[in-house]
Amino acid sequence: MKKIDGGIHAVSGVQSAAVHAGIRFNPDKKDLALFYFENGATIAGVFTKNQVKAWPVLYDIEQLNKQSEFKAILVNSGNANACNGENGNESMLQSIEETAKVLNISPEEVLVSSTGVIGAHFSAEPFKNYLPVLKENLQDTSSADAAAAILTTDTVPKEVAYELVLDGQIVRIGAMAKGSGMIHPNLGTMLAYLVMNVACDQDMLNTLLLNAVEPSFNSISVDGDTSTNDTVLLATTNDVKVQLNEKNIAALQALITQVAIDLAQMIVADGEGASKFVSIVVSGTKQVADATQAAKAIATSSLVKTAIFGEDPNWGRILSAVGNSGIENLNPQTVDIYFQSDKGRLLVCENGAGLPFDEDKAHEILTENEITIEVNLKSGTESATVWTSDLTHEYVTINAEYRT
Amino acid sequence: MKKIDGGIHAVSGVQSAAVHAGIRFNPDKKDLALFYFENGATIAGVFTKNQVKAWPVLYDIEQLNKQSEFKAILVNSGNANACNGENGNESMLQSIEETAKVLNISPEEVLVSSTGVIGAHFSAEPFKNYLPVLKENLQDTSSADAAAAILTTDTVPKEVAYELVLDGQIVRIGAMAKGSGMIHPNLGTMLAYLVMNVACDQDMLNTLLLNAVEPSFNSISVDGDTSTNDTVLLATTNDVKVQLNEKNIAALQALITQVAIDLAQMIVADGEGASKFVSIVVSGTKQVADATQAAKAIATSSLVKTAIFGEDPNWGRILSAVGNSGIENLNPQTVDIYFQSDKGRLLVCENGAGLPFDEDKAHEILTENEITIEVNLKSGTESATVWTSDLTHEYVTINAEYRT
Repeated sequence: MKKIDGGIHAVSGVQSAAVHAGIRFNPDKKDLALFYFENGATIAGVFTKNQVKAWPVLYDIEQLNKQSEFKAILVNSGNANACNGENGNESMLQSIEETAKVLNISPEEVLVSSTGVIGAHFSAEPFKNYLPVLKENLQDTSSADAAAAILTTDTVPKEVAYELVLDGQIVRIGAMAKGSGMIHPNLGTMLAYLVMNVACDQDMLNTLLLNAVEPSFNSISVDGDTSTNDTVLLATTNDVKVQLNEKNIAALQALITQVAIDLAQMIVADGEGASKFVSIVVSGTKQVADATQAAKAIATSSLVKTAIFGEDPNWGRILSAVGNSGIENLNPQTVDIYFQSDKGRLLVCENGAGLPFDEDKAHEILTENEITIEVNLKSGTESATVWTSDLTHEYVTINAEYRT
Repeated sequence: MKKIDGGIHAVSGVQSAAVHAGIRFNPDKKDLALFYFENGATIAGVFTKNQVKAWPVLYDIEQLNKQSEFKAILVNSGNANACNGENGNESMLQSIEETAKVLNISPEEVLVSSTGVIGAHFSAEPFKNYLPVLKENLQDTSSADAAAAILTTDTVPKEVAYELVLDGQIVRIGAMAKGSGMIHPNLGTMLAYLVMNVACDQDMLNTLLLNAVEPSFNSISVDGDTSTNDTVLLATTNDVKVQLNEKNIAALQALITQVAIDLAQMIVADGEGASKFVSIVVSGTKQVADATQAAKAIATSSLVKTAIFGEDPNWGRILSAVGNSGIENLNPQTVDIYFQSDKGRLLVCENGAGLPFDEDKAHEILTENEITIEVNLKSGTESATVWTSDLTHEYVTINAEYRT
């Protein structure tokens, strides 16, 4: 597979537009995006596991259970349309009606996402006022406006595209995401839209998406913690027919997983106030699940994350986090811990006990912006990687001021 | 029951001493404490659930399983004696031998605790050098030196004592604790020592202690997260004989639980960099466990804790945390949320939807140092309270600089 320029418009058959519709105060920030598939698309989705779900999440889940073919996705930022009573549902249904009317399609062919403040009144007015403009603006050359419109606290838009040759045909996938949560990444809403051109049915899309989500978006998340609005949609225009044999499916899976990992890493790198991108590699477990569980325990430890911010090789906090992870078959006497970056790699704990190590070297490694913490439990052959960022003053500032 | 002055010396039959033994660098900070029961004490303990356990924790667990009567407890700060190899165990055993020799008791009658940096070399020298001095300094008038010696990042010592009349006799309990963790409180080691005078066997002590720990120390902790060293010991001098009937046991349980809650609240109030003491009361559940689980999910949400620091009535983050808690029977459509302090009480979310509320009033309530978040799920009659603090810049500063 090969990374190519652009985002969703790497695939033909999808148009996008974005506008400032007044959902957010800042008139310079676009807050409403529309994706339109003139010839339709087959779509699968995965959603938040939070028991408190926003109206658009409840709606999309229901629609995707009913049917597989859609023509439009409407996304707003600035208002999560969650926890705001029945009015939020009614306004959303009006926005869907309006979208269908403007595009001359059926309301059942529209999916919706929202992200922003929870519990705020959700009005249908911005949609009524701006959907005609959105329709006028639909184009297929740049998704930059749409990628910007879906952002909330993100500092940069997140787009990626890849191509691959399968059976002599060019397979393409383009995608965009928003999200910049940090400690529990998914508590800050994550939205992602992946569009490809390989013909396949919704069941196959579901399988591909579920497999892609685990080592990507779910590897920056913790304990199943998710916001009220998290949504990942995988659409295909069905333009390219390849034989869906075992080999091609594996190649397609690798492609989609790669796109999801790229987006997930962009979300971590744009973590709220993050100053460092931290890869946590846990190896030597009997089960992958144990490695993942241990890596997530490290990734959520505020004590580990503040130590990384302080560039302090405090491996004791890492070992303690592993001890708290609740994994089975942990033998503290076989745990090795390394710190690694472009500045080198240093063993700081061997067989569960601290080693005398060069503090200056350790500190030098930790001054880098990209750091890897390696933990080898030496009791098996499985491993897992989780990505996180450090816990900074800037994080506290951003989250203490978000709503007001 | 009645709160009285002092700490463990409210009970006669226990002596204490403390000294700077050079385990910590700062010569003004005492780092070694000794408790001595001349006529012995029956002791029960609860310990960290972390799979990575410090040497003294492993030792005490083994000793308490073997026997019930002890004469001394030796506690050092500055070094956790954890993850430092077999040498840490040998040095600890030497410190126990030395304690026994100096006090002219059997090594089996000594229990030990450590708190401080994980993974550091643990030397027996400070113990050999200073145990004779400690013995000379033993007295039963003030435990202030001992209460100071066991501290690490704490800003204030934590002592409490109560008395109660049972069967016409004066029952007393005195206690001290250290601990100032915050986000996952028990990741910062918590030590607590409770000494009472009511005669009872170790089985009864175990039951009383386990019951006391749940609504106190375990209500400031999360997901079973515990440090490598957490230790709570309940000792009795057995000086006061009361009939252990149902009524007296209940009174004794209430007394011990109250002491544990007082200490737990002092630990939260001394949370690292904490600016606010937050009580989270979840009510209206079918099971107490559900209320506890939901309250802990709120208490560990960094997004909730930074909002409280920012004095922002961001109830959406609270509801989202409840949705992530994984409790059964959650109906988001019946959840009410209140903010409360000495400045008033305000309903901000009713039946899962935001209410228009007076932002100025909400902000005024949240400017107080003691805040209560009330969440009523209205699907049952059970409730639980958990205590936490806000997430501040000071927390990041303290924990980014701890070890180096």
